[in-house]
Amino acid sequence: MPDIALQPIGVVRSSLASRTGAPRQPDEGAPPASIHLDPEWQDGLDGIAVGNRIVLITWLDRADRTVLDTHPRNDPSLPRLGVFATRSPDRPNPLGLHRVTIRAVDGTRLRVGPLEAIDGTPVVDVKIVWRGD
Amino acid sequence: MPDIALQPIGVVRSSLASRTGAPRQPDEGAPPASIHLDPEWQDGLDGIAVGNRIVLITWLDRADRTVLDTHPRNDPSLPRLGVFATRSPDRPNPLGLHRVTIRAVDGTRLRVGPLEAIDGTPVVDVKIVWRGD
Repeated sequence: MPDIALQPIGVVRSSLASRTGAPRQPDEGAPPASIHLDPEWQDGLDGIAVGNRIVLITWLDRADRTVLDTHPRNDPSLPRLGVFATRSPDRPNPLGLHRVTIRAVDGTRLRVGPLEAIDGTPVVDVKIVWRGD
Repeated sequence: MPDIALQPIGVVRSSLASRTGAPRQPDEGAPPASIHLDPEWQDGLDGIAVGNRIVLITWLDRADRTVLDTHPRNDPSLPRLGVFATRSPDRPNPLGLHRVTIRAVDGTRLRVGPLEAIDGTPVVDVKIVWRGD
């Protein structure tokens, strides 16, 4: 199948500057962060309000797309697993899923938290949390 | 930002042939289905077993990427919302999130269910379900 063109719609702005310092999960000390969507997507945010829970989908652009197995949580004492059996960012298509709460909305800028993604990470989708999540 | 090249890793095989007949959510009558990953990804599945819950990420290739607002659940009696405040497949990057249970594993073919994606839908990622989901 041919490649698919994924269009970044915005970027994560965070105090997390590198993968080394980033927590592995949002409940492991991740800070609040901002999502700066490009202004052209304003109409897509109609109805998003403070307090909403969203699933943010990012492109983990510092991941290694050639890795197929890994030690979970990068812990060498744990047995190696296929990347699809883990939540490692390293995988053929490094999409990040982040459930976060909207804390403020200012045009196409959303304040959210907590978020374990690194500053500069491209954002590719936002979905309201639904009962099946 | 430049477009990102998303590489399909497999395809959904389902009795659902068109978007018209597809349920909107997996608990609305979706059938079991199969995920046929390409053989090159075999090592990525190490550790995936019957009974596991996974998040399947698909590319909803029949969606309209130009739509920014919509009636939720395609119901004209509901007020229009921005697509990011809904779960509509129509959105700039039509990524589908599907939480499904593994029912059988045969090489790189996974039997899963229930799944509301249409036959032929490209698969782009598989992640084990984690506590934050």
